[in-house]
Amino acid sequence: MSKENLVVNAIRILAAEGVQKAKSGHPGMPMGAAPAAYAIWGKEMKHNPADPKWPNRDRFVLSSGHGSMLMYSLLHLFGYGLTIEDLKQFRQFGSLTPGHPEYGHTRGVETTTGPLGQGIANAVGMAMAEKHLAAKFNREGYNVVDHYTYCILGDGCMMEGISHEACSLAGTLGLNKLIAVYDDNEISIEGNTDIAFREDVPARFRAYGWNVIDVKEGNCYKQVDAALKLAKKSDKPTLVVTHTAIGYGSPKQGMSSAHGEPLGEENIAITKKNLNWPCEEPFGVPEEVYECTAKTIEKGKKAQAEWEKLFAEYSEKFPELRAEWDVWFSDELPVDLTKDEELFAFEGKAATRNSSGVTLNRLAERIPNLFGGSADLAPSNKSNMKGKGDFSAETPDGQNIHFGVREHAMAAICNGIKLHGGLRPYCATFFVFSDYMKNAMRMPTSSPTTPSASARTAPPTSPSSSWPACAPCPA
Amino acid sequence: MSKENLVVNAIRILAAEGVQKAKSGHPGMPMGAAPAAYAIWGKEMKHNPADPKWPNRDRFVLSSGHGSMLMYSLLHLFGYGLTIEDLKQFRQFGSLTPGHPEYGHTRGVETTTGPLGQGIANAVGMAMAEKHLAAKFNREGYNVVDHYTYCILGDGCMMEGISHEACSLAGTLGLNKLIAVYDDNEISIEGNTDIAFREDVPARFRAYGWNVIDVKEGNCYKQVDAALKLAKKSDKPTLVVTHTAIGYGSPKQGMSSAHGEPLGEENIAITKKNLNWPCEEPFGVPEEVYECTAKTIEKGKKAQAEWEKLFAEYSEKFPELRAEWDVWFSDELPVDLTKDEELFAFEGKAATRNSSGVTLNRLAERIPNLFGGSADLAPSNKSNMKGKGDFSAETPDGQNIHFGVREHAMAAICNGIKLHGGLRPYCATFFVFSDYMKNAMRMPTSSPTTPSASARTAPPTSPSSSWPACAPCPA
Repeated sequence: MSKENLVVNAIRILAAEGVQKAKSGHPGMPMGAAPAAYAIWGKEMKHNPADPKWPNRDRFVLSSGHGSMLMYSLLHLFGYGLTIEDLKQFRQFGSLTPGHPEYGHTRGVETTTGPLGQGIANAVGMAMAEKHLAAKFNREGYNVVDHYTYCILGDGCMMEGISHEACSLAGTLGLNKLIAVYDDNEISIEGNTDIAFREDVPARFRAYGWNVIDVKEGNCYKQVDAALKLAKKSDKPTLVVTHTAIGYGSPKQGMSSAHGEPLGEENIAITKKNLNWPCEEPFGVPEEVYECTAKTIEKGKKAQAEWEKLFAEYSEKFPELRAEWDVWFSDELPVDLTKDEELFAFEGKAATRNSSGVTLNRLAERIPNLFGGSADLAPSNKSNMKGKGDFSAETPDGQNIHFGVREHAMAAICNGIKLHGGLRPYCATFFVFSDYMKNAMRMPTSSPTTPSASARTAPPTSPSSSWPACAPCPA
Repeated sequence: MSKENLVVNAIRILAAEGVQKAKSGHPGMPMGAAPAAYAIWGKEMKHNPADPKWPNRDRFVLSSGHGSMLMYSLLHLFGYGLTIEDLKQFRQFGSLTPGHPEYGHTRGVETTTGPLGQGIANAVGMAMAEKHLAAKFNREGYNVVDHYTYCILGDGCMMEGISHEACSLAGTLGLNKLIAVYDDNEISIEGNTDIAFREDVPARFRAYGWNVIDVKEGNCYKQVDAALKLAKKSDKPTLVVTHTAIGYGSPKQGMSSAHGEPLGEENIAITKKNLNWPCEEPFGVPEEVYECTAKTIEKGKKAQAEWEKLFAEYSEKFPELRAEWDVWFSDELPVDLTKDEELFAFEGKAATRNSSGVTLNRLAERIPNLFGGSADLAPSNKSNMKGKGDFSAETPDGQNIHFGVREHAMAAICNGIKLHGGLRPYCATFFVFSDYMKNAMRMPTSSPTTPSASARTAPPTSPSSSWPACAPCPA
């Protein structure tokens, strides 16, 4: 077995064992989506585990958040600081590996996911942020904002309405640097997806204006990787459809029962045999796996170093833009609004929506990186920023977003914009329609002000220091 | 002008004048969708205004609920008892013509609409109810349940995620008696729909497994009618795409400003000229209009009479089914659950989800017309009724619904099932996901127990008694 296939299987086995030890969780999705995850994280994604806040990193969103052990296995194997010990603490109170990935809690997690479909909407927001920031800051020869946003989403995300809202808008906006991998395992909790979901997903996404690539053998990371390479060249957002098997390699492969419960010790033993996994002991990982991911880690370090060099030159050549950059990417506001008397100066009586509109426009003069709009109610909500242009496929520098009548996606997209960094999003609708937004409004988009003791900020010095030894693997 | 075109224009003019008098509302949608509305109400829909509760009537849902003056104009012109005086009271407190159509308040309104997209999900629920009831009650030569469900929906509904959820499920379930008319006027509040919505809607619906018919000239009721006739022959749900013009006939035709504000007195005068409308005085309607709709009213009366005859024969031939019918279509439960000790008999401790599952199954033995399920969480929610079969395209007699991961549509579909009559729907998900459902959960599905004084139960004896006279129209 090649080292790379060994990494793919490491993701599968660690996910199965994490769930087994916790006696709860979702092993099936990570086992099926491991090749796609490896193709992204190991082959295509530009990321530096030593600095998960590098502004120009590619973003990754696991929209099928219940497959959290996929995320944790990746964070461990690619040196983000999660240890084998952390994986053993999956779903334990206070651990770094809660049931679903939590932003601000576990290093390297870009957004909290779990409520299906919201992750892909977050990813759309991140890709919108990239497009807008690129239009603002890039200059010829200096693409300082230039990254992709990857997302893995499953059948459940595809059924949720928010995936329609967000992906229809992504097509309209021509977000060509958004690459979504559809983990199509055809299994839902109640049985085969056919019982509730017979739509032609590729045709649906083509209707949205997406580029669609069908990967017949979703269990082969090389085929997925080839599709990702093609996707990068598209002038549209891309959906890579991967036909996968839930619980791949296990006796429960292709079965609903692989979705949301441990496989069982015996089945894990059989899975290891099926996959030629060399380590018998739980959570054992052969050294070759780390040797392989170390190369990706090294590549990421170099990529950031090259960007830092470019950015230093850029800062010298465009000092004003660099100064603006520092303002845009700061957590602090450029002005102290509490001491700004003009901001709140009103005379006479006014409808609240009117004073809100006036205030928003005053804010837009003080805060340069406001980016937002309404779910097709801007004239009523008075949420348009005058003179700031419309954000569209053709005019990515515009600051006013037309979300369309899509309240839920609007809220989740704003979360994604905020999580991306560099922008201050806002959105608006009538209060009664906030019901549509509620499930996105409750999601966190900033780290806790007092970081929890468990939220480590740096990876261990040597990624392999705490990993159990294992017999070497055939290459 | 033909009398039928005169009816189409009557819908337009009454809608414009209702909004003008109220000084608020939405004239544009009714003016554009009037031909489709007439094709449905005047040509194809089986309905008897004298009995809006006839169980086998075709159902009609106005998903673009802001176009309520379309609904009120139709209810007036087709003799449902709304008078010209009621139309003049549009949007006045306590009137029968509130800003959005309200179920249980205005006679002939099948469901409350306004929050975009929920209407089409209601319609899907109604079509599911029809399919299930037909499977239960129909016998060879006795199709006592045999009706269509019509829905008009607009661009806003198409953008909302719930339209994706509901229509994808409708395709999966092969709801061939669902006919949705897409009022594609390409205008939203913030401007041309292109700013936020460039998807290929027909391709999207074909991807759902729908039959799609494109009507190029949406302003011609005859072309829409021809499409409806074709739709009735399809073995799939049908989307009739009508290319329309918001504010048709007015100087604001095709403009965003026709959407949500009065046209203005002057513009109404010009509109009347443009449409060759023969009545200058506000709310004037030529007698020919009522002569024309009187034929439809008569046709509806006959249709119900024929059904009553069939149903009487059916009742004689299948007395047991008839007895069941009476139970199913009653508002009362067949048993007094409060006196049923076995229903609530439990021993020892049990997880709430387990006792809920046991109770549901006990209820299913006592209440024959339960119809429901979960948003892909039935094994966790314990919401499956044992031995009651699955509802699907192939097995419409099954009582367990697989909604897929579509909480919002699930709730709105259950509303539609309840509003249809004959069934007792239920649905289930984890409490945290009820956020997705909230906007549907708040909608009414039963009439107030104390009917409001204004909610008339019978139409005026002569439909034209209260209408202002007007010079006869050229045929």
